[in-house]
Amino acid sequence: MPIKGPLYDRFLVKIVFLGTSAAVPTAQRSFPCICIQRDGEILMFDAGEGSQMTYRAAGLGWNKKMSIFVSHLHGDHCLGLLGMIQTMSLQDRDKRLFIYGPLGTEEFVRSNMRMLGTTPRFEVAVQDVTEGIICNTNSYAVHGCAAKHSIPTLSYLFKEHAKAGRFNVQRAHELGVPEGALWGQLQRGNSVCVSGVQVTPGQVLGPSRPGISIGYSGDSRPSPELEEFFTRCNYLIFDSTFTTDMIQRAIVTGHSTSAQAATLAKNAQVQNLILTHFSARYQDADIHLKEARRIHDSVIAAQDMLVIDVYKDGSYDTSSV
Amino acid sequence: MPIKGPLYDRFLVKIVFLGTSAAVPTAQRSFPCICIQRDGEILMFDAGEGSQMTYRAAGLGWNKKMSIFVSHLHGDHCLGLLGMIQTMSLQDRDKRLFIYGPLGTEEFVRSNMRMLGTTPRFEVAVQDVTEGIICNTNSYAVHGCAAKHSIPTLSYLFKEHAKAGRFNVQRAHELGVPEGALWGQLQRGNSVCVSGVQVTPGQVLGPSRPGISIGYSGDSRPSPELEEFFTRCNYLIFDSTFTTDMIQRAIVTGHSTSAQAATLAKNAQVQNLILTHFSARYQDADIHLKEARRIHDSVIAAQDMLVIDVYKDGSYDTSSV
Repeated sequence: MPIKGPLYDRFLVKIVFLGTSAAVPTAQRSFPCICIQRDGEILMFDAGEGSQMTYRAAGLGWNKKMSIFVSHLHGDHCLGLLGMIQTMSLQDRDKRLFIYGPLGTEEFVRSNMRMLGTTPRFEVAVQDVTEGIICNTNSYAVHGCAAKHSIPTLSYLFKEHAKAGRFNVQRAHELGVPEGALWGQLQRGNSVCVSGVQVTPGQVLGPSRPGISIGYSGDSRPSPELEEFFTRCNYLIFDSTFTTDMIQRAIVTGHSTSAQAATLAKNAQVQNLILTHFSARYQDADIHLKEARRIHDSVIAAQDMLVIDVYKDGSYDTSSV
Repeated sequence: MPIKGPLYDRFLVKIVFLGTSAAVPTAQRSFPCICIQRDGEILMFDAGEGSQMTYRAAGLGWNKKMSIFVSHLHGDHCLGLLGMIQTMSLQDRDKRLFIYGPLGTEEFVRSNMRMLGTTPRFEVAVQDVTEGIICNTNSYAVHGCAAKHSIPTLSYLFKEHAKAGRFNVQRAHELGVPEGALWGQLQRGNSVCVSGVQVTPGQVLGPSRPGISIGYSGDSRPSPELEEFFTRCNYLIFDSTFTTDMIQRAIVTGHSTSAQAATLAKNAQVQNLILTHFSARYQDADIHLKEARRIHDSVIAAQDMLVIDVYKDGSYDTSSV
């Protein structure tokens, strides 16, 4: 179980792996579905068939602020959307649900809602998207980049905005800035005027603190574009369908080997690589891990119900739902 | 585990319960999906989300002669069709797959196959059907009857054709019919001529033996039409979403209580009643069973992975996958 209680607010972000299989699920691995839980909000990346069952099992909540990012319209990555909407409706969700995906996602969701008579009382805000900024909030943005697969596919990058540096109370007093509204102005990055003298944020704020960034490849071959897209992200969740001996099969099917994932992560100076989307032919991910660790020094093999608690400094602990 | 080996051919029919939940699944119950396994063939009734996972777990085989009968187009009864087709395709199925369901089923399957780019090398023979004979083979037929639910819904009745009576070898000898082709003619119900004298099948065959019949309600209120439709069937798998205290909710949502299922089964002189489709609000089916058994003397509560082996005389054993 994840650590609860006083330590809880140390966690900036949790990554919850609900499904880590490739196109054919196994008794141990469900279809792809990965959630980022942050500040009471859920960002879901892909929703393969059965995602509502693993989502329920993880207890992530039916009425959270939520966005779903679909990598591509192969059934194993998107079929769970439809049941997710139906069950949210039965669970009386009232918050808008955002769904983003490549061209065709809106038609897929809308036409199925019509055919299945799904009429939730919450708004399903579904949108076809392309490369660039997919959504942008006060505290984070999600970016998209075209990935190389057998059909149009998007990789995603969740990126917290940099936070303002620490407020130096002593320095503020020295500069004669009275506690209150003016401190707030400075913390928000605005200069203030004290007894006719201008005080700038740079005089009272420490260096800005970078946010956490987490990349998700979906199904993909490695590519220079993705290498650039994922540069220096803290965590990269990457297609690791095959081991090196199956590299030809990876090429033909538009997937990656774990060594290719590790090479891309190393070149992109990614801090931590998380392998996922393992072919059903493997009993475990031991060889994937071994091959990736020869190339990159921080590699995790995802498994269903793995939880990664990411701390403010980018370090992590793992646990299980 | 089901009994294997010499006893195996005693089983005419197996009923395998892959999912027994109502509209919201639980940790114990998956979405509706029930299979009849008979003579190497699978007849599936409903395919809720995740059916391919439970189907795989039950080891029923991806390349069997197979027909799927969809009761209605609510997601919890049909969303599993799409992943089932995709996984069958990945598993190199080459046999035609028949899918039957009420108006809209063909559009649902075809448009999703188009949107998801599913191009199996086997034929998906999907057909919208109404009441009456849905399919009719040499050895059985499946009939449909409109059921009372919130959207157009079909109940189904699987019915083996009556088998010819036992061939009386002694009587055939007495009548001078030589062993060989003429015996075959008589067994197939045709009269033959021996030394200018006509011998009719009735002279050498015992009384015809009725086949097994199994009804499946899908989501349904009880109705006089279903009572007549299911008359004297050996097994009736019936909507038992609620216990009696929730009867108003059953009426509003177009479902049945277990007592209503039992009353219908009793009036229809059904031999064995199998309750299924239990609401997620119940921890177990104890009260459903108790209430139904006050009315009908042979009641089973279905659970996921329950297997019912039906013998030639209509009796049964239960086991688990």
